[in-house]
Amino acid sequence: MVKLDRVVKLLAMPMLWMGIVQLAFALLSLLWFRDKMAARFFEPACFMLVLAVAINFFLKDTDLNRIGFRDALLFATLTWALTGILGAFPVMLVTGVSFTDAVFESISALTTTGATVLTGLDAMPKSFLMYRQFLQWMGGLGVVIFVVAVLPMLNVGGMRLLKAETPGPVKDDKLSPRIANTAHYLWFIYVLITLLCALSYYLGGMNGFDAIAHSLSTVSTGGFSTHDASMWYFESHSLLAISNLFMLLGAISFGLHFRVLHGKAPLLYWRDEETRVFILIVVALSAALGLYLLVENRYGSLESFSFAAFHVVSFITSTGFGAADLSSWPAASAMFLVFCAYLGGCAGSTAGGNKIIRDIITFKLIRREIQQLIHPRAMLPLRYQDKAVDSEVRSAVMGFMSFAAGSSLVLTLLLMQTGLDFWSAFTAVAACINVLGPGFGQVGSNFLPVSDAGIWLLNGAMILGRLEYFTVLALFSPLFWRR
Amino acid sequence: MVKLDRVVKLLAMPMLWMGIVQLAFALLSLLWFRDKMAARFFEPACFMLVLAVAINFFLKDTDLNRIGFRDALLFATLTWALTGILGAFPVMLVTGVSFTDAVFESISALTTTGATVLTGLDAMPKSFLMYRQFLQWMGGLGVVIFVVAVLPMLNVGGMRLLKAETPGPVKDDKLSPRIANTAHYLWFIYVLITLLCALSYYLGGMNGFDAIAHSLSTVSTGGFSTHDASMWYFESHSLLAISNLFMLLGAISFGLHFRVLHGKAPLLYWRDEETRVFILIVVALSAALGLYLLVENRYGSLESFSFAAFHVVSFITSTGFGAADLSSWPAASAMFLVFCAYLGGCAGSTAGGNKIIRDIITFKLIRREIQQLIHPRAMLPLRYQDKAVDSEVRSAVMGFMSFAAGSSLVLTLLLMQTGLDFWSAFTAVAACINVLGPGFGQVGSNFLPVSDAGIWLLNGAMILGRLEYFTVLALFSPLFWRR
Ligand SMILES: [K+]
Ligand SMILES: [K+]
Repeated sequence: MVKLDRVVKLLAMPMLWMGIVQLAFALLSLLWFRDKMAARFFEPACFMLVLAVAINFFLKDTDLNRIGFRDALLFATLTWALTGILGAFPVMLVTGVSFTDAVFESISALTTTGATVLTGLDAMPKSFLMYRQFLQWMGGLGVVIFVVAVLPMLNVGGMRLLKAETPGPVKDDKLSPRIANTAHYLWFIYVLITLLCALSYYLGGMNGFDAIAHSLSTVSTGGFSTHDASMWYFESHSLLAISNLFMLLGAISFGLHFRVLHGKAPLLYWRDEETRVFILIVVALSAALGLYLLVENRYGSLESFSFAAFHVVSFITSTGFGAADLSSWPAASAMFLVFCAYLGGCAGSTAGGNKIIRDIITFKLIRREIQQLIHPRAMLPLRYQDKAVDSEVRSAVMGFMSFAAGSSLVLTLLLMQTGLDFWSAFTAVAACINVLGPGFGQVGSNFLPVSDAGIWLLNGAMILGRLEYFTVLALFSPLFWRR
Repeated sequence: MVKLDRVVKLLAMPMLWMGIVQLAFALLSLLWFRDKMAARFFEPACFMLVLAVAINFFLKDTDLNRIGFRDALLFATLTWALTGILGAFPVMLVTGVSFTDAVFESISALTTTGATVLTGLDAMPKSFLMYRQFLQWMGGLGVVIFVVAVLPMLNVGGMRLLKAETPGPVKDDKLSPRIANTAHYLWFIYVLITLLCALSYYLGGMNGFDAIAHSLSTVSTGGFSTHDASMWYFESHSLLAISNLFMLLGAISFGLHFRVLHGKAPLLYWRDEETRVFILIVVALSAALGLYLLVENRYGSLESFSFAAFHVVSFITSTGFGAADLSSWPAASAMFLVFCAYLGGCAGSTAGGNKIIRDIITFKLIRREIQQLIHPRAMLPLRYQDKAVDSEVRSAVMGFMSFAAGSSLVLTLLLMQTGLDFWSAFTAVAACINVLGPGFGQVGSNFLPVSDAGIWLLNGAMILGRLEYFTVLALFSPLFWRR
């Protein structure tokens, strides 16, 4: 059962961590950027650090070695909610936005959504811009650990499929050693890819600040930028290509990255069914959109395919970088990109959406139903990666897909009630539950037009989508709170 | 395997039937309505009758006793497509619309969708108005036989759940005697409810013509009217209440109606899980919408709840009658009604949408996934009507739900490409795949603004939704055409 003291003591950990991060940015502002923002990071940092230390002191007898599944579920949701609120203080203090908007910006960063309520980024203090980017990077790392270490054990949305794929020696059901072990393997990969990305951006023409800033939001598929014009600020197709590569790496399972690196076997990417299908889908959809843009005669042939590939990658990996004036594109192409966002990246990565592995299972299940109609008496197996998929996993995957579709509809309905039109409400919801970022219509530039009630709804939607729905839903079951 | 001569001979049957119907309307026009439309029904009728008889003559040696599952699947889709085209001739000849629009009107009638490309109904010839209504009624009867006799045997969308519920003594797997037997039981119920409906409308204040015309489109949950103002032409809340009752009866399993009547046991309605949940959902959603309209201060309290109940019933049963100027309601309430249409009525009825039985299974499956997260080692059964639901049925249900959600998204995307905005395209697709009828936005009054390409897309969508997706999808599998 859930024990309050254990949960509070667990939460002191992210609180301590957020305090350290803000303290670091106070020092960065003071010593490196010299943009006079130090106090605005230092004050909330002190508060968090003192509180976190106090909790640890008062609950020093609480044993954290016995955390169970339910603690993990509660801890995941509360961590994103709590760090969302704690991360909001510097946003408020630096930009002067309301508490509601600051929490939105902070949750949007930590869930790697990348939707924003801010404008005029280019003129903002550098320490604050880097803070936003760093929150995304940190959120991305947290997500990777969560989806690789926790989801497969709990079979959230059918993710038991990935259980055998988890790196590291610990494969049993003990939660804490497993998380610690997996985290140990993953953060190294995550840092490595980020460094390669920053270096590539730098060599591609960005200055050092932008290269680091954008690497943090590329590998985390977060999508925040230090410029209002996002990735097209640099007006370089080679930077778009570099960005494509690292968004894709961020949207491929980090467990797989580990196995590739450990075994020095790049062919594993192709041998993995999900990654292979993911790459084929990206190529096919990019070609389709490129042809469409070419026929529409909007850009030259290089631009058409470069913009098409960049936007397909940006949306399917749920990064949400922009490079062209999307609002001038036909509405159908915007809808096409939203559809890409629902497809999602690979499981075990920082990408959002339904995930390619679930798309594959769903496609195969539908195909099997059709075959069953034609041969009613045949026994037709459903295989993934050459292994039969059992009915528990199938149920969990299909429950996930249905809940994703249903909650999109219901959240859109609720958001329309706060005053947005259908297109804006639908794309805002899609942007949040798929942790994508950009919306269209009234929320095409930023999320300022959304009322406070709407913002809190979207705050919930981002955490719901980021934690794959069921992690959050479980907390609303009476069963969860029973002994 | 599929044999062409057998399929052609099978199709001569609906062709003969359509010829007889149009011949009857030629006579009605000549002798009863005296509106000079007889020739416009007679000419196509002759053509069909001659062709049908010729086919029977030339294929007199073709044996129809050995039709199998695949023949049934192909026959179902081709019947709706063929009768849609054949039924379009009088529409063209009487109203002068294009072939494309006439086929849309005819398919819309026969699939009980009720979307229209016509305006100025009130001034149209009575024989033609009654013909449209009769096509809906006939389509509804065809659907009932199809969903009660064929779907449960093929487990289309998980409908094996209903196999034990089929009326009549034949419960084995032989297709032709089963269909004949079931049809025999069902048409009696269908006619009985229609007569009661016509009588009630008449006593409620409609004239004889309108009472019969509207009974035909109420029990079939078709939604066509003889007036542009639809059900509110009569400006009577008691007629709305009568309409509610018969729309609900049309959206409850006709197999269940049979068992209630046969056993003189009205309590069976409540003991049936799907019907019970359906009624509870209708009451809850009506109350919610009624309160909303009351708070919006749009109508008095009687009007608020009467309009709310009528529209919830009209949309959830996929009838699509209108009673108030919906376009003046807030967009969120329109979206709410579209959501009702996706829920759908009961399986084994004329209603469209996803069907309550699948909503129940999906809800229970999602709830079970949540419970499984909290108790990972527990064995949790999924029960419907006190019986465990096996994994084949669960897979089929979830495949259906996912395909419904995915195809809505893809069809909306394609329809936007033909020039409609998102809201119009989305509601047009929802109106067609759920065989609902009314759309919003640009298609708020009728479907004239849709381009020809869009109309053919929607023609396909209506048949796809009416035949529960998989019946049609099967035909696109290479497996279907293999020996
Ligand atoms: K994002
Ligand atoms: K209808």
